[in-house]
Amino acid sequence: MNTCLDCLPCIFRQTLDAVRRVSDDPAFHEKVVRQVAEWICGADLSESPPAMAQRLHRYLRGLTGIDDPYAEAKARDNELALRLLPGLRERLAVSDDPFTLAVRLAIAGNLIDLGPKSDLTPEEVEASIGNVEKEAFSGDVAALRRRVEGVKTILYLADNAGEIVLDRLLIEALGPERVTVAVRGAPVINDATMDDARTAGLHELVSVISNGSDAPGTLLEECAPEFREHFDAADLVISKGQGNFETLSEAPRDICFLFKVKCPVIAGRVDLALGTQALVWLQGEAKCKEAQ
Amino acid sequence: MNTCLDCLPCIFRQTLDAVRRVSDDPAFHEKVVRQVAEWICGADLSESPPAMAQRLHRYLRGLTGIDDPYAEAKARDNELALRLLPGLRERLAVSDDPFTLAVRLAIAGNLIDLGPKSDLTPEEVEASIGNVEKEAFSGDVAALRRRVEGVKTILYLADNAGEIVLDRLLIEALGPERVTVAVRGAPVINDATMDDARTAGLHELVSVISNGSDAPGTLLEECAPEFREHFDAADLVISKGQGNFETLSEAPRDICFLFKVKCPVIAGRVDLALGTQALVWLQGEAKCKEAQ
Repeated sequence: MNTCLDCLPCIFRQTLDAVRRVSDDPAFHEKVVRQVAEWICGADLSESPPAMAQRLHRYLRGLTGIDDPYAEAKARDNELALRLLPGLRERLAVSDDPFTLAVRLAIAGNLIDLGPKSDLTPEEVEASIGNVEKEAFSGDVAALRRRVEGVKTILYLADNAGEIVLDRLLIEALGPERVTVAVRGAPVINDATMDDARTAGLHELVSVISNGSDAPGTLLEECAPEFREHFDAADLVISKGQGNFETLSEAPRDICFLFKVKCPVIAGRVDLALGTQALVWLQGEAKCKEAQ
Repeated sequence: MNTCLDCLPCIFRQTLDAVRRVSDDPAFHEKVVRQVAEWICGADLSESPPAMAQRLHRYLRGLTGIDDPYAEAKARDNELALRLLPGLRERLAVSDDPFTLAVRLAIAGNLIDLGPKSDLTPEEVEASIGNVEKEAFSGDVAALRRRVEGVKTILYLADNAGEIVLDRLLIEALGPERVTVAVRGAPVINDATMDDARTAGLHELVSVISNGSDAPGTLLEECAPEFREHFDAADLVISKGQGNFETLSEAPRDICFLFKVKCPVIAGRVDLALGTQALVWLQGEAKCKEAQ
């Protein structure tokens, strides 16, 4: 998915958020913002927004030597999600439709994304999780369930820290024995890495692999060979979050995207209102129908 | 007031809003956005945000030959405010404190500002006016009232179309015989010009002058001599809106600023929450106290 002009104000905002996490020096902030403006003068807008964000965060790491400016935010969000987990298991245990609830919880957890919004509060996360069954939903959960029943291998592309703890509930519902979870190869924004998968306890439940890349999305051409093999071979790919959607929406295979619609550009692209819990199949409608 | 780094995402957003009002051509939109990025690479951030916006809108006028991209929006907002006026006069007639209500209505009308927000709806304006006495308010109306009682000449700096219709109610309360209203010298964003003052009927009530400038604020060094004389000589200057605040907050005289806090940068500067109706005296506390 291309970067559109409406992404540019957001890239500036994200730059300011990131640069303030690594330095208190206004002159340094200004230097980085001017550098980003210079990139935009000559930017190739056919690149996806995560490719632009990758360049920004590599630049910041190079300037500061700080590898993970969002470490504290990620630890806080993992902790919050782990605290919510027992209560959510109780809700699932008494639910009439635990599969749908697990899908919705995994999507609601995708609110925990410090890309499109700098100042997410724990209260907002808890409210979203608390109202998980009242939020607008778009997509065919029954079709996903039928598809899941017929497959042997599922590749689950995680998105953010905190969110990955809630993903655990859906992974348990999918059948962990056939699921491989992929995380980012290095810290970028608050995206989940191997450490976050461990914090979520996923390493005890499923095989977790790194995608080998430091983009806040999945730039296939950059991903590690092991990841590419899983991506090509899996019977089903479930992809979490906007960054993975932005980078994989034209990928050469069917993918089930699960994300919360958090920015007007994505909202326009999928024709859904902001805040909607979205289950979107792309390139996969035929396969999806076969399974029905 | 300097442009701060947080203003830059907003300048990009405003650019997109303006450019889409003058052209449907995505290639033209991209050209303008890249030009703005180039300015930002080398921008003098000691300039105020209205000075940056002035440059953007001059550039757009030069490229397109369209003098007033916001003409339709301004006409719609004037019409809306004129439709609300009779009901507001009735509210004032039965109010226990019509002066305070007139001040609050003038500030609430400052919501009609297409600088910080591109997509203001008539419903938002009506809701803000309807709740005028319930919105948060900061400032000393009694001190303004006392000051007004002691002065012979008042210069009233208008801000936006639509808003200027509601200003009429406060100007009537101030005593029109001593009020001069100043408007922008040329169209820029939805700022009020002489045409809007006429639509509001102000020309029948008070002397209306142009400030001679096409900035969405008051850049004193660019304003017409007649305006400067009024500005220097008036016993009291009442200044509406954020753009006038951004350009006059360090002016060499006391000014009573009336505006609705509509962006996080201004909110931080005056230490008030977004949405607050603000009455802020600057450089004028001594004089204000003298009048008490």
